[in-house]
Amino acid sequence: MVEIIKVKTGSQGLYEFTAQLQAMVRRSGLREGLCSLLIQHTSASLTIQENADPSARIDLENWLSRLVPENDPLYTHVFEGEDDMPAHIKAALTSTTLSIPVIQGELALGTWQGVYCWEHRHQADYRKIAVHLGG
Amino acid sequence: MVEIIKVKTGSQGLYEFTAQLQAMVRRSGLREGLCSLLIQHTSASLTIQENADPSARIDLENWLSRLVPENDPLYTHVFEGEDDMPAHIKAALTSTTLSIPVIQGELALGTWQGVYCWEHRHQADYRKIAVHLGG
Amino acid sequence: MVEIIKVKTGSQGLYEFTAQLQAMVRRSGLREGLCSLLIQHTSASLTIQENADPSARIDLENWLSRLVPENDPLYTHVFEGEDDMPAHIKAALTSTTLSIPVIQGELALGTWQGVYCWEHRHQADYRKIAVHLGG
Repeated sequence: MVEIIKVKTGSQGLYEFTAQLQAMVRRSGLREGLCSLLIQHTSASLTIQENADPSARIDLENWLSRLVPENDPLYTHVFEGEDDMPAHIKAALTSTTLSIPVIQGELALGTWQGVYCWEHRHQADYRKIAVHLGG
Repeated sequence: MVEIIKVKTGSQGLYEFTAQLQAMVRRSGLREGLCSLLIQHTSASLTIQENADPSARIDLENWLSRLVPENDPLYTHVFEGEDDMPAHIKAALTSTTLSIPVIQGELALGTWQGVYCWEHRHQADYRKIAVHLGG
Repeated sequence: MVEIIKVKTGSQGLYEFTAQLQAMVRRSGLREGLCSLLIQHTSASLTIQENADPSARIDLENWLSRLVPENDPLYTHVFEGEDDMPAHIKAALTSTTLSIPVIQGELALGTWQGVYCWEHRHQADYRKIAVHLGG
C-alpha cells in the first residue's frame, strides 16, 4: 500500500507529522511490517528527532542554518532564490527517505521520538511525502 | 518479523554490531529480502562505515565532534547536559534508519563495510534498535 | 528480488542513475512496492537531488568538499590517500541506503528528483549498488 500524504509546513523549521503517519498505519490494519517514507522535494527533508522539548528543534534549525548560510559566494545555483541552494545542501545533509518498523500496529519509535518534515524554504505551503506500508 | 536488539555502547564513538545483525538474519531463515533498522534514540545514530582500519572510526568521531562542539552559545536546549544538543545535531547529520538488502541469507554489505551504532553521549549503557526483516 | 547494479562514476561529483533504476523496476514487473538501495562502498554515497539544473550538483560538490577538506591535520587515517578520509566523512554525512516507494510501476519520485551516486574519490571506475524490490 502506497499513499501520498501532505504535511503542512510554513517557514524554516521542523514540523511533526507522527500522528498523521500513525493514523495511516492504523487505517491500513498492518500489525507488523515496515513504514517507508520519501519526501518528494529537494528543498525540504525528513528527520526523526526528540519531540519532548521544542528548544531542541529550534537549536537544530539555527545550527543548520548557520552551517549552511544564504548568500555564500560559493553558490552558482542562485536563480530560484537565496534560500534555494542552502535548502538543497540541508536536504543532502539530513534525510530524504526513512524506514520505520511497525510492531503491534504502531510505529516502533522510541519514547521521545517524533517524525518531522524539515522545511528549508522561507515559505512553503505543504510538502508531499510518499508512504509505503509493507509486511 | 521485527525484533528489538540491544547494542552495547559506552563513551562517544562507533560500535560495530554487524555480527549481531547477521546472526538475527541467519536465525530468521530469510534467504532474500530486506533488513531495515531504526535506532530508538535521538542522541545516538546509525552508520555503515569501513570496518578494516580503526583509525577511520576515530577520525570520524573526532571530525564530527569538532564540527558540533559542546557549549556552543547558540544552544538553548541545555538542561539535559552539555553533550545532549550536540548529540541531537550529530544524529540529524548521520542516520536514524538504514535498509540493507539480504542475498543468499547474508547482509549484502560491501567487502569492507560494517554496521555501526554511533554513540553521541559521553556515557551510555546500551542502545535499542528495532530491526525488521521482510521478503 | 535483489540485484547488484553498477553505476559508472569518475571524478568527484554526482552521477545520476535514475533511468537505470527505473529500467530495473520495469523489468521486474512490480506495480506497487518499495525499491531499497545500498551502496556497497564507504567512499561514495547516495543522494536524491534536483535533476533540473546541473549548477545545483556542482554547488553541492563544492560546498561539501570545502566542509570536509583534504589534508586536515585531524586525520590519522591517511595511508589510503588524501581523498580517503574526507570520502568516509562525506559518506557519513550523506546517505548509504535509500528507500523509494513504487507506484504504478514507477519510482514515486518528485517531479524534479533524480537518484544519484555521489563519488567522493578523485578517480573511480564504477560503484556497486545492491537494489531490493519488494511488495
